[in-house]
Amino acid sequence: MHRFRFPPAAYRLYISNSKSTRHRCIQWTSHPFHPLPLSSLHTSSITRKMATLQELDATIAEKSALFNQLKVRADPTEAAELEATRVKLGELKKSRGALLQASGGGSKDKKKERLLLKTGKGTRDYGPAEMFCREHIEKTVKDVFHLYGGSCLDTPVFERKDILAGKYGEDAKLIFDLKDQGGEELALRYDHTVPLARYLAMAGTTITNAKLWQVGKVYRRDNPVMSKGRMREFSQADIDFAGSWDPMIPDAEIISLLGTILTKLEVGEFTVKLNHRKILDGIFEVCGVPSEKIRSISSAVDKLDKLPWAEVKKEMTQEKGLDPIVADKIGQYVQLKGAGLEEAPKLLEQLLQDSQLASNKSAKEGLSDMSILFTLLKSYGILDKISFDMSLARGLDYYTGIIYEAIVEASAPPGLKQADALAPTSASGGTDSTSKPDSKKKPKKKLDEEGEEEIDESQVGVGSIAAGGRYDNLVGMFLSAASGEGKKTASIPCVGVSMGLDRIFAILWPRWIERGMRSKGTMVYVMSAGDGLLQERVHLVQALREAGINTEFSFKNKPKLPAQFAAGEKDEVPFAVILGGDELKTGLVTVKEQRWEFKDGQKVKVQSEEKGTQVLRDKLVDWIKNTQTFRDWQIGKWIS
Amino acid sequence: MHRFRFPPAAYRLYISNSKSTRHRCIQWTSHPFHPLPLSSLHTSSITRKMATLQELDATIAEKSALFNQLKVRADPTEAAELEATRVKLGELKKSRGALLQASGGGSKDKKKERLLLKTGKGTRDYGPAEMFCREHIEKTVKDVFHLYGGSCLDTPVFERKDILAGKYGEDAKLIFDLKDQGGEELALRYDHTVPLARYLAMAGTTITNAKLWQVGKVYRRDNPVMSKGRMREFSQADIDFAGSWDPMIPDAEIISLLGTILTKLEVGEFTVKLNHRKILDGIFEVCGVPSEKIRSISSAVDKLDKLPWAEVKKEMTQEKGLDPIVADKIGQYVQLKGAGLEEAPKLLEQLLQDSQLASNKSAKEGLSDMSILFTLLKSYGILDKISFDMSLARGLDYYTGIIYEAIVEASAPPGLKQADALAPTSASGGTDSTSKPDSKKKPKKKLDEEGEEEIDESQVGVGSIAAGGRYDNLVGMFLSAASGEGKKTASIPCVGVSMGLDRIFAILWPRWIERGMRSKGTMVYVMSAGDGLLQERVHLVQALREAGINTEFSFKNKPKLPAQFAAGEKDEVPFAVILGGDELKTGLVTVKEQRWEFKDGQKVKVQSEEKGTQVLRDKLVDWIKNTQTFRDWQIGKWIS
Repeated sequence: MHRFRFPPAAYRLYISNSKSTRHRCIQWTSHPFHPLPLSSLHTSSITRKMATLQELDATIAEKSALFNQLKVRADPTEAAELEATRVKLGELKKSRGALLQASGGGSKDKKKERLLLKTGKGTRDYGPAEMFCREHIEKTVKDVFHLYGGSCLDTPVFERKDILAGKYGEDAKLIFDLKDQGGEELALRYDHTVPLARYLAMAGTTITNAKLWQVGKVYRRDNPVMSKGRMREFSQADIDFAGSWDPMIPDAEIISLLGTILTKLEVGEFTVKLNHRKILDGIFEVCGVPSEKIRSISSAVDKLDKLPWAEVKKEMTQEKGLDPIVADKIGQYVQLKGAGLEEAPKLLEQLLQDSQLASNKSAKEGLSDMSILFTLLKSYGILDKISFDMSLARGLDYYTGIIYEAIVEASAPPGLKQADALAPTSASGGTDSTSKPDSKKKPKKKLDEEGEEEIDESQVGVGSIAAGGRYDNLVGMFLSAASGEGKKTASIPCVGVSMGLDRIFAILWPRWIERGMRSKGTMVYVMSAGDGLLQERVHLVQALREAGINTEFSFKNKPKLPAQFAAGEKDEVPFAVILGGDELKTGLVTVKEQRWEFKDGQKVKVQSEEKGTQVLRDKLVDWIKNTQTFRDWQIGKWIS
Repeated sequence: MHRFRFPPAAYRLYISNSKSTRHRCIQWTSHPFHPLPLSSLHTSSITRKMATLQELDATIAEKSALFNQLKVRADPTEAAELEATRVKLGELKKSRGALLQASGGGSKDKKKERLLLKTGKGTRDYGPAEMFCREHIEKTVKDVFHLYGGSCLDTPVFERKDILAGKYGEDAKLIFDLKDQGGEELALRYDHTVPLARYLAMAGTTITNAKLWQVGKVYRRDNPVMSKGRMREFSQADIDFAGSWDPMIPDAEIISLLGTILTKLEVGEFTVKLNHRKILDGIFEVCGVPSEKIRSISSAVDKLDKLPWAEVKKEMTQEKGLDPIVADKIGQYVQLKGAGLEEAPKLLEQLLQDSQLASNKSAKEGLSDMSILFTLLKSYGILDKISFDMSLARGLDYYTGIIYEAIVEASAPPGLKQADALAPTSASGGTDSTSKPDSKKKPKKKLDEEGEEEIDESQVGVGSIAAGGRYDNLVGMFLSAASGEGKKTASIPCVGVSMGLDRIFAILWPRWIERGMRSKGTMVYVMSAGDGLLQERVHLVQALREAGINTEFSFKNKPKLPAQFAAGEKDEVPFAVILGGDELKTGLVTVKEQRWEFKDGQKVKVQSEEKGTQVLRDKLVDWIKNTQTFRDWQIGKWIS
């Protein structure tokens, strides 16, 4: 428990990764503004021996409250203090447990126990400033879905248990079940793909060609790494094209769409690792892997982004009993990769020249797909972002064609950065159910207060931020299961991608903070100088809102002018409109435009000697709508 | 199970309520387009005796598939057929059960059982056309939240069980629990109010004044009435103002905000029923209700919108043991109501003149609040929508000030319409946890296949579509529970409103269908005449998308022109851009603007003899952006 609200570890990672922002980060850390008496946490009162349980309880309650406040406030300048508080709190709670055990008590104390004010493990609240950023991410993603002709689908957060059964292999243990309260067995959805396939199977032949997107939360009982956006409740944005078209056109369209989204989100340099299940299967066949071992050998290959070949080979031979000669043959193929406009097609050409692969049906089909795909990706202008990577296998059984994974420079864990900038730890819980088992180099773990493993957050990367592939048989699996007797039924071929919105948020949030702590898009704050003028303020506020201008005012009868300015400044409201008794008689109001800038690492209001502009009340809406500020905001320009 | 996807009962209700749309409704019902052989459902094959279980199974599977397709398609012309199918399916399944029981079998048959392709009880998918409408509703609501200076909060879908405990009274039995899989006890959130209060309590003094909105799903294990938007999973949009300001200003702002949203959504004529807990409590005190009976008498009063006074009185006296003289005194107060600019203040004046109430502290405070509120609501221009209704009590314990409920003309159940247009059945699961116990006039019920009561959907109204009130102590409850020992701690006073988005959808959807079955906002469909020109199409599509124009094209290498037109027409795409080999050489493309109109109750494309306009490829973006159509779409004008 007590993981960070604001991702301080991600923030530290950010410092270590990006030279260009180091300056500002350090400035934040030395930020002088500490409204809470943080120093009180580090007094000797914490470490001195507690005489009684009551004393200990009181201290825990006090520190917990403080800790909660720090978490909610999510002020980056307080990251170190927050971390220290977390550790101290843990110590205090252990002391309490020991004291209880020593006194043989605990049970009789239970009834009086305090309510723990916290969210469930692996979940968190997002406050106003964070949601302002997350809303921006969601809007950007949805706008691109619309741009590519997608329409929205919404499925329930829980499904009948038998719909999810048998779709996630080993990871099925991570499914959140609902309690049996009579009626159906239910479970929280694990991803958007299986509910989509269930929907398509129910729709049957009424849906032939569809481009469907879903944005929403999915659930996995995994070990959370909150700061990296690896949560038990997390948000995914999916788009899937379902239908029979000509080869690789929808596939190329999806990859282009993914590239457009990552570019518009400004996540930084990104690469889309690409492979094809049929090529992989062909390789395993020509190398001599027994068919029953193909899936487990495939999952070993998938670890090549985290482990050296020698270790992967050891897993294949020692753990999975593969002939070392076969393993070596595989090794020659799966370590191949080619990135970008030149190298990716070159690797493809090399494989097409390979006589062994040429004689294998599966490999041939896969390579032919890739040829068409590369031509299309060139037309789309996205081939330069592609890395054709033979080690990409992905965990899910249901993929039948191309598979891909998007990674960004900023998402790699610190330890692996130097070794291979394009090979981050692929953590589960991000973009689909391929949670790769932790390697020998697994992050240091310790036990949290519930006895579950806690992960050292600084050692885990954000991982892939998007992933997907082609799955032509999943809808068919539902159709044949529903028809009973395992009859063969027609399927609906699909290709799709999932984006991990929490991981994208973990990358964007530190940069978002630089833009100030605005949490809403209020444009005008209406104030009164002097006599309160509540009714007049309400009238003007309503007139501005009527015209579509986001407007606020003080909920006080006679607010003081400085307090009104301060309220408007909290969210960097660009227009202060001031009502005065005298001016009202002449039908005038005063407008002051306000601007903010960075000064010594802090966002501050630009001081101005101007007294403001006098505008006729009846012309105020037009006046505001004619400003450059308003026009910029209309097109979302204030964000950047 | 097998409730309607598309709300046919709501649709029928719509027919019965709205004269102006009756014409079109009848036209739909006689709509000639039935792509599925619906008549096959009504053949003698269903009713004839089944010789064997296999035969029965096959028929059930076939009809289930058909039923699912009808549900997903949600075509209003098929509502009656869908209903008939549902009934027949129920009969078939009962026959199957009887047959199994007669043969003593069932258990050995279990393993072969088919997967049921369905969503959990009380939940449903929303397909593209429905989501297009729901996205419009959400956007309208969020825009107004921004207009009034709200910022977004997001809390997890599940909470620790002890956070929800003790907040919902009797309705706690409706909470969905998660299964104990080790670790914490968790439950799905029941509303947005309690998680908000938990968040504010965690934030403590760091949040002094906040205007927070939440839009998301909440969960109640209630008897669903799907067609009226009464679901087990349903969407609520909440906004709450938390903080200490001057009396009634935030309260008036919330009511104004609610009115603005309902006006912008065009839900039809609406009324905001308004009352004050302190006035009610004062009335109970001066009438002589023993203090321990106040809450249960209050909940009896709340039924006055569904029951005549005589029955409510009977409940008070016979069931709850209240002195009949006391009940009669109450009756004189709680049957008072005054609606609109004239009558509402008049009723307030009458109560202010009442010497008994004037001598009661609680009533005096409540009436003083109401005086201030009415003045403010007049300034806001919303007083004409208010009905000051002394019978409004609402179920939740935590309200401490004004309470309100928005109802719309279209939301009343048919049976009660004539009696009192402003008194719909308030169904639970809509806007907050006040599920009023069903009255004597309760809808007819029968048992569904799981043995749970099924509700006759045609007899239930949509109910209130929004509700809320002031709750000044809820955050304090959390703070004192967390501090232990029941210490008194400061609270954060709150006032808020919840809107039932599914109910709003149930009202808007039938009208939305009139606007055509568009499911996305695609503006351009790029086509090729003749030779495929895949690469050229991709280039043009990407150029248009680059300019922010939603564009699609066929995923075929050499698509036929009529097929391309048909694909674009499905979503009423306004611009067809056609590439031809010859024109490409001269750098030209052909643009055809397409329009749709209603003809004999059907949306049809306006036939045009025009051959289209030849536009320079390089000028295409500018050309499109200069059309009236594009400018209208930019401001969302195509929707209305």
